Amino acid sequence: MSIITKQRARDLGLPFPGRPGPLNAITDVPGVCVGFTTIRSGQGELVVGRGPVRTGVTAILPRGHDRTPRLVWAGFHTLNGNGEMTGVHWVNDGGYLVGPICITNTHSVGTVHQAAVRWMIETYRESWERQHLWAMPVVAETYDGVLNDINGLHVTEAHALTALRSASTGPVAEGNVGGGTGMICYEFKGGTGTSSRRLTVGSRDFHIGVLVQANHGVREWLTILGVPVGRHLTEDRLLGGREQGSIIVIVATDLPMLPHQLQRVAKRGAIGIGRGGTPSGNNSGDIFLAFSVANGMDLPQFRPPVLTVEFINDEQFDPIYEATVQAIEEAVVNALVAGEDTPTLRPPGRICRAISHERLVEVMRKYGRSD
Amino acid sequence: MSIITKQRARDLGLPFPGRPGPLNAITDVPGVCVGFTTIRSGQGELVVGRGPVRTGVTAILPRGHDRTPRLVWAGFHTLNGNGEMTGVHWVNDGGYLVGPICITNTHSVGTVHQAAVRWMIETYRESWERQHLWAMPVVAETYDGVLNDINGLHVTEAHALTALRSASTGPVAEGNVGGGTGMICYEFKGGTGTSSRRLTVGSRDFHIGVLVQANHGVREWLTILGVPVGRHLTEDRLLGGREQGSIIVIVATDLPMLPHQLQRVAKRGAIGIGRGGTPSGNNSGDIFLAFSVANGMDLPQFRPPVLTVEFINDEQFDPIYEATVQAIEEAVVNALVAGEDTPTLRPPGRICRAISHERLVEVMRKYGRSD
Amino acid sequence: MSIITKQRARDLGLPFPGRPGPLNAITDVPGVCVGFTTIRSGQGELVVGRGPVRTGVTAILPRGHDRTPRLVWAGFHTLNGNGEMTGVHWVNDGGYLVGPICITNTHSVGTVHQAAVRWMIETYRESWERQHLWAMPVVAETYDGVLNDINGLHVTEAHALTALRSASTGPVAEGNVGGGTGMICYEFKGGTGTSSRRLTVGSRDFHIGVLVQANHGVREWLTILGVPVGRHLTEDRLLGGREQGSIIVIVATDLPMLPHQLQRVAKRGAIGIGRGGTPSGNNSGDIFLAFSVANGMDLPQFRPPVLTVEFINDEQFDPIYEATVQAIEEAVVNALVAGEDTPTLRPPGRICRAISHERLVEVMRKYGRSD
Amino acid sequence: MSIITKQRARDLGLPFPGRPGPLNAITDVPGVCVGFTTIRSGQGELVVGRGPVRTGVTAILPRGHDRTPRLVWAGFHTLNGNGEMTGVHWVNDGGYLVGPICITNTHSVGTVHQAAVRWMIETYRESWERQHLWAMPVVAETYDGVLNDINGLHVTEAHALTALRSASTGPVAEGNVGGGTGMICYEFKGGTGTSSRRLTVGSRDFHIGVLVQANHGVREWLTILGVPVGRHLTEDRLLGGREQGSIIVIVATDLPMLPHQLQRVAKRGAIGIGRGGTPSGNNSGDIFLAFSVANGMDLPQFRPPVLTVEFINDEQFDPIYEATVQAIEEAVVNALVAGEDTPTLRPPGRICRAISHERLVEVMRKYGRSD
Repeated sequence: MSIITKQRARDLGLPFPGRPGPLNAITDVPGVCVGFTTIRSGQGELVVGRGPVRTGVTAILPRGHDRTPRLVWAGFHTLNGNGEMTGVHWVNDGGYLVGPICITNTHSVGTVHQAAVRWMIETYRESWERQHLWAMPVVAETYDGVLNDINGLHVTEAHALTALRSASTGPVAEGNVGGGTGMICYEFKGGTGTSSRRLTVGSRDFHIGVLVQANHGVREWLTILGVPVGRHLTEDRLLGGREQGSIIVIVATDLPMLPHQLQRVAKRGAIGIGRGGTPSGNNSGDIFLAFSVANGMDLPQFRPPVLTVEFINDEQFDPIYEATVQAIEEAVVNALVAGEDTPTLRPPGRICRAISHERLVEVMRKYGRSD
Repeated sequence: MSIITKQRARDLGLPFPGRPGPLNAITDVPGVCVGFTTIRSGQGELVVGRGPVRTGVTAILPRGHDRTPRLVWAGFHTLNGNGEMTGVHWVNDGGYLVGPICITNTHSVGTVHQAAVRWMIETYRESWERQHLWAMPVVAETYDGVLNDINGLHVTEAHALTALRSASTGPVAEGNVGGGTGMICYEFKGGTGTSSRRLTVGSRDFHIGVLVQANHGVREWLTILGVPVGRHLTEDRLLGGREQGSIIVIVATDLPMLPHQLQRVAKRGAIGIGRGGTPSGNNSGDIFLAFSVANGMDLPQFRPPVLTVEFINDEQFDPIYEATVQAIEEAVVNALVAGEDTPTLRPPGRICRAISHERLVEVMRKYGRSD
Repeated sequence: MSIITKQRARDLGLPFPGRPGPLNAITDVPGVCVGFTTIRSGQGELVVGRGPVRTGVTAILPRGHDRTPRLVWAGFHTLNGNGEMTGVHWVNDGGYLVGPICITNTHSVGTVHQAAVRWMIETYRESWERQHLWAMPVVAETYDGVLNDINGLHVTEAHALTALRSASTGPVAEGNVGGGTGMICYEFKGGTGTSSRRLTVGSRDFHIGVLVQANHGVREWLTILGVPVGRHLTEDRLLGGREQGSIIVIVATDLPMLPHQLQRVAKRGAIGIGRGGTPSGNNSGDIFLAFSVANGMDLPQFRPPVLTVEFINDEQFDPIYEATVQAIEEAVVNALVAGEDTPTLRPPGRICRAISHERLVEVMRKYGRSD
Repeated sequence: MSIITKQRARDLGLPFPGRPGPLNAITDVPGVCVGFTTIRSGQGELVVGRGPVRTGVTAILPRGHDRTPRLVWAGFHTLNGNGEMTGVHWVNDGGYLVGPICITNTHSVGTVHQAAVRWMIETYRESWERQHLWAMPVVAETYDGVLNDINGLHVTEAHALTALRSASTGPVAEGNVGGGTGMICYEFKGGTGTSSRRLTVGSRDFHIGVLVQANHGVREWLTILGVPVGRHLTEDRLLGGREQGSIIVIVATDLPMLPHQLQRVAKRGAIGIGRGGTPSGNNSGDIFLAFSVANGMDLPQFRPPVLTVEFINDEQFDPIYEATVQAIEEAVVNALVAGEDTPTLRPPGRICRAISHERLVEVMRKYGRSD
């Protein structure tokens, strides 16, 4: 399958720090499933409502296909709020979320939200018959109107349900897939990227996994492992030096962390994406969510009045933060490395180029940063 | 029309403080339009997917049907985040919103969001052809699963578009209308309520208007103008003393206020709803949004690099806060007073009663609080 | 002792809801100690630097005089930030505090902070010799410049250390004591007030205790148990109808609650003080802190890498919120009822009157709200 | 003077991006004054209370020595709140600050706060005689207990007043001065650093100036202009790889920006310090404040009820953010480059080394990052 044979950033010899999990993907966190629906149709000029269409839906299931609605504790941070992520008021206040996390294009948030609600009603039917329960799924977005007929509203509930139902553990596709299909990153083809880190706390092993939908950045900002790549790879620029994109970062972990601790992890998204060179532009929705699958917990409605939970001592956090930052940095580069050339619709007639692996390696070498 | 002839809380002689606008409605704020789609169909027992249906959509247009996408500065606050309001990350960070504000039931947020996006694409078509622009509408919700087949997902995009397109200035319907159709408030029939206040700052007149979708509260908490009404009107209780609802509060004004000032107004929602007796329950989504129609402003994309704006001196805020709190308190009571008896679906076979006007006045008199 | 024989609000027959603890004070929470230094000197006209002085320091020790620096989990909320409370960035982020909480006048925050640091260095000397540790005490304030020579900076480190060292369990003085000495509340003499509630979760008994330093409010706003007292007791007004004060609310509990849960408790401060009638004025520092003495915990520096903790299920929160709101409401009235007439300095020559117990009871009766 | 002749990071040929102001200092922002008191005394072993002392106070006056208390609009952000910065609740809520900003060691916050209050009482005496006004100065800190007898509490009010009164425009000293005297940064000697950028918006020139008190970082994290310096300069490590420090970042500008816009600037502190390699450690107080001297404004108490103000269109923000990030990055390196060897007290007997200019340049060259 292409998702396995495609080259990733490490395959190019880029010396990312840290120790990734076996898949170097968010799915290294036990039980986390990822699914995609990639929608591509049409050629030629943009006619709103007719296409061409290059968009999709990404679904992350923190508890997989479990039919019991178990919560995950979570934390949330907005570095620049020019974007949408639903479902997070309760993350901020209640400290948890239940159900799926989806990412799509900006104008399909509603349809994907409706599908996620439907998926929850169906999946958790049995619990919902016992109690009044309600769905507040997380749906986030980035804008793909340069490469996709975004105003044609082509994503359907069926598309989103397919992504949700097909979500699985295992390797995760990158680049032009799912919600990342029509994304542009540092004026190269962007999209979906993932990475992970392993670490030991006490004597136990844990994982931090990241998935990004990378649609942000102006070329001259681009920095990879400290190398000012964007100042060298100046060809095929697209946006006239103006940020119009966004990045969504989802951090998963099996470290037992409390809600306020996960919020602190989410805040590290700022440093993680900052390593790529962005100062977080005004028109960017740079929004971060972190959740923990530890402490498998039933809904409050089904639990006793006093509970016990495990959590990590704050004194252990520095390696966790560092691993989070590293995995975010690498996931963005993975999104770039996996990109595929895509023609632009608006303005028409150009090509949003994938970053050249050869040129990238060449620049990295020039700065002494390649194996 | 029923919306005019229906009795409102002041008509019962309740001595609300302050000076309301001519309509005592959010539409006293110049240019603000409100529209409703009320969906009612079916009788008898709940069959998920078949009904009965008692739900709807409320649409507020801060800039009416203006085809130029002018922003309004806005501020946001969550007292208890067990609910959804989309579009507010950018309110928090950018300080403004563009386009409609909709309120519906919890499981129709997605469909209504999609409709609001469509409405923006259509309404602002001309500007959107000039620039890459994106829609991040505000869609909020409260839960109506006791009175409505909420899991049947009966709200359609067409329903929401009807509410949006029919929005108008003038009197505003209350009670079982729009998003408020299936709401329960302090275990009485709740729903949509509105109120307004006029005030003078400097030598100029301004308005503060409020619209609530009131679905919160346990009977024994209910307090009206300081009178512990809920301890007297103890009949026909519904929820077994457990909060399962929410309240959305939208505050509009023509006072020129900056984003951080409007956030402060939004925070007063806590005191406003608190006057009704709620301590803001755990399962409640008590979410507040305030916006100002002053300083009619084009999008940043269409404006010069340095701008000038008018705003109110903070020293003038106390009467503004007091007016906001008063209007919220009154809007909730208006929602109660306008309620109409509705049979319950889950549990089946009971009636969610409107508050009795006679009994209410009787209790108020007992405490010396009626004209 | 006067602190025992003084009448409190309940002694006047005011029908406060809920079940207070044995002392109806913050010290009903096991281990919590309170100490005061009340500073009074001088008579006659204000000469800055010479007095008269009517101010002081209130000290709360969440862990009493324990020489081991054990943390308490805590949550923080600002309703209106026109005031100071130090030490809370770490409450927001790390979720806990260590050491004392002090309240004084606005211009003595620094001196009291220095004293609190010194107290921590001395008290925790043994732990501090083992590790690099640092003090970030909580010091809050309200303004007493109408009754006290605040700009004379009369509070010394010794005053603050006396409050800290004398802190004890047992009954808590109210009114013109400690930091509350020079306070004005709803244009009556305000100051220190306290109250508590007991509640049962699961089958265990817990306590919520509140201490306020009440210096806020305009007369016409004043509402007690829903009765518009301020519209009846209109004599001896002081501030020309302008809010210039603040209120600090400290909530203690032995309920095991996580940091994000305690932040939610702190947010209820808005509703608690709102019951007294304030809309939270622009010039007010309405700042709330909640902490839990449960889960007695060593500093992170001295704990193992993975920990276990007990906490309350969110589903149990509504009575907790209601108890918090009730105790805050009652603590403010206790501060009023315990006030003692004090001459004003600025403007000079008037008297800041304590609320008349007789007149208060008379108005309450008129509205049917007295035993 | 040494402050002029000392080498700064640019003097070493490090290719920082962007265009600095004439002083490459926070004082490039018109009217901003900076003053230091550096306290050094004693030699040999630590005896708490006797020294040795290597600490101090840094004072920033946003409006210089103006005797009229004019506010500056401001914004605040905490990346990691393990530290103190007073005076910011009102920045968050009211959007402005009045008076000085001071930075000192962790345990002298109180004394410096008291001095800043005294300075405000004296400086603004005339306004304060007209109205009840109150001081809420900004005082921040970082921990210097490795190099200074921090628990001896050697900073006096007089020290702080000297820093305040001597504050001036012009070049700004760096390294072991003022509050930065005893700081450690990436296990090198840290301290005070500054930098600035110029930029043009519309056709007008503006400045962004930064001052940091840099006390953060573990050696292996250290990255300068993308070069992993810390992995090469591994000698003389101090902290055993554990973060114990903090960084305070103050951003000044003459760009007319609204409070919510300045909060967004403050948020960029995360990216700014992230460029140096830190993931923002658990024990770090990484706290950022941004203010604008534009729109010279009297206090609300002395202004008309409706006001007009100038502000920058958000569309201009990306270069502003980039300049802010660049200036923060450079200010940290300036703090390192200006450091001077200092013996440690705890543990005793070692030397906290300044970074070697030669070794630094050597590593930068190796990675192709030096002129």
